[in-house]
Amino acid sequence: MTMTHRIIPVALCQQQYGADIDANRARNLAAIADAAARGAKLVVLSELHDSLYFCQTENVDTHDLARDLSHKGDACRPYAEAAARHGVVIVCSFFERRAAGLSHNTAIVYDTDGSEAGRYRKMHIPDDPAYYEKFYFTPGDLGFRPIETSLGRLGVLVCWDQWFPEAARIMALGGAEILIYPTAIGWESTDTADEQQRQREAWISVQRGHAVANGLPVVTVNRVGYEPDPSGATGGIQFWGSSFAAGPQGEFLYRASDDAPGIEIVNIDMTRSEQVRRWWPFLRDRRIDAYGPLLHRFND
Amino acid sequence: MTMTHRIIPVALCQQQYGADIDANRARNLAAIADAAARGAKLVVLSELHDSLYFCQTENVDTHDLARDLSHKGDACRPYAEAAARHGVVIVCSFFERRAAGLSHNTAIVYDTDGSEAGRYRKMHIPDDPAYYEKFYFTPGDLGFRPIETSLGRLGVLVCWDQWFPEAARIMALGGAEILIYPTAIGWESTDTADEQQRQREAWISVQRGHAVANGLPVVTVNRVGYEPDPSGATGGIQFWGSSFAAGPQGEFLYRASDDAPGIEIVNIDMTRSEQVRRWWPFLRDRRIDAYGPLLHRFND
Repeated sequence: MTMTHRIIPVALCQQQYGADIDANRARNLAAIADAAARGAKLVVLSELHDSLYFCQTENVDTHDLARDLSHKGDACRPYAEAAARHGVVIVCSFFERRAAGLSHNTAIVYDTDGSEAGRYRKMHIPDDPAYYEKFYFTPGDLGFRPIETSLGRLGVLVCWDQWFPEAARIMALGGAEILIYPTAIGWESTDTADEQQRQREAWISVQRGHAVANGLPVVTVNRVGYEPDPSGATGGIQFWGSSFAAGPQGEFLYRASDDAPGIEIVNIDMTRSEQVRRWWPFLRDRRIDAYGPLLHRFND
Repeated sequence: MTMTHRIIPVALCQQQYGADIDANRARNLAAIADAAARGAKLVVLSELHDSLYFCQTENVDTHDLARDLSHKGDACRPYAEAAARHGVVIVCSFFERRAAGLSHNTAIVYDTDGSEAGRYRKMHIPDDPAYYEKFYFTPGDLGFRPIETSLGRLGVLVCWDQWFPEAARIMALGGAEILIYPTAIGWESTDTADEQQRQREAWISVQRGHAVANGLPVVTVNRVGYEPDPSGATGGIQFWGSSFAAGPQGEFLYRASDDAPGIEIVNIDMTRSEQVRRWWPFLRDRRIDAYGPLLHRFND
């Protein structure tokens, strides 16, 4: 097969964040500038990158952090401007205020001219001790639609979505050329070391599985470092970093540290999927006549 | 959580097969007897275990291998009798003749009294050079339904199904307590060593992903060894063995050799899923209101 290879240098920005929002934003803008200077064309930040992971407790006052995400909003303008200034596509993640008492966990993609290429509102919302997201985020209402950019069609999903093969598959069926997961996940302090490693490996395995099942590269960016639980109810979260990129056979292209920040640029061959899907044409053989039970809660 | 642990000793029978069907059957029956003597309660054989992997060429005469699978058929009776004799549940895989010119790739599960607990007709049928299954097998018409046995509800799927998250999910939604994949997969002789390892790892990754996404253990049994291509069109297939068992977080419980036969008994804790799904209740959060696109071929 003769084919022109289309390579995208993707920056995975694995950062630690603190309570100072201005400082977090400055750190992200510096990371974008650094990544662009090193040749990145696509920059991926982790989930809710302007703040601490505030879902460790349920506090009505925390809704003050939610922001109007119209183009001129203070939360997104610096990122839109950075995209234009550096000529890069940026995948951002915000706490979106839509109305009083109605907020979302929203990813926005800015294109190289600073325009909003599209947004995705997190569809699957977790809720377990120290991750009280159902309190803060209304489940997304935009469906699973790839975002068209000057670099290609991006299948942007967010964190908890990563456990759901349905989300990855619908993105692939919508023509996504890459799956991208901004994430905030870590260990609870009372888990054993064995259990911690099982959790981290499970998180990696399921996403490599999405790459394989869909013949698509996957880029996942997690935050790193310890954040205390403001309520003191738990021992806080040690975010496990471990950001990674995998090719369309699930093969690792890059794996970040589990305990240190870093900005890595990974060359992703967007044409590799063409070859892999010719070998393994799973989309050819799906039994759409028999998948009706997927639309049920449970088939008992 | 207090809970009685329910452990099933599962035998993974990774074998090499030859042209002599009687010899293959004798090998399988000896494996079942050996496994039962060593304490196995559930015995899993690999795909199409009574013959060579005959799909390397398209030959109308090969349909002579297809068998009527009514209970008194010669193909299944020895396995039904072995199940009763040893008091084990056996997962078998046959070339099922249903009518002239209408055959299936069919798994049958025999319960400890020798009765047929249920059957599954392979739903996703591959077709690529040296795996010409679309020529031999009509896609299954029984859907993805777990098979109720005295040991629990088995989500039996076959080989190519392993690449499709939809199949695993529908089994889980039907109440399957374990996913079981009899398989026949290997390397084509012209692939590079790197490509061979990517393929094998992809095959493992996607199935560990099913374990994680569904909170279920997975047992996969592959054949092993070299089988030539009767047509000489390709260099034949080196079946890669690598049978494995994983727990409901995708953690390895056992990994077989990639080049030697063997019968391994793995204790699988069927109660572990209860704990894992309490931690990670993915089934709670599925967006069934937004999964309609899964029933489409492609959403362009």
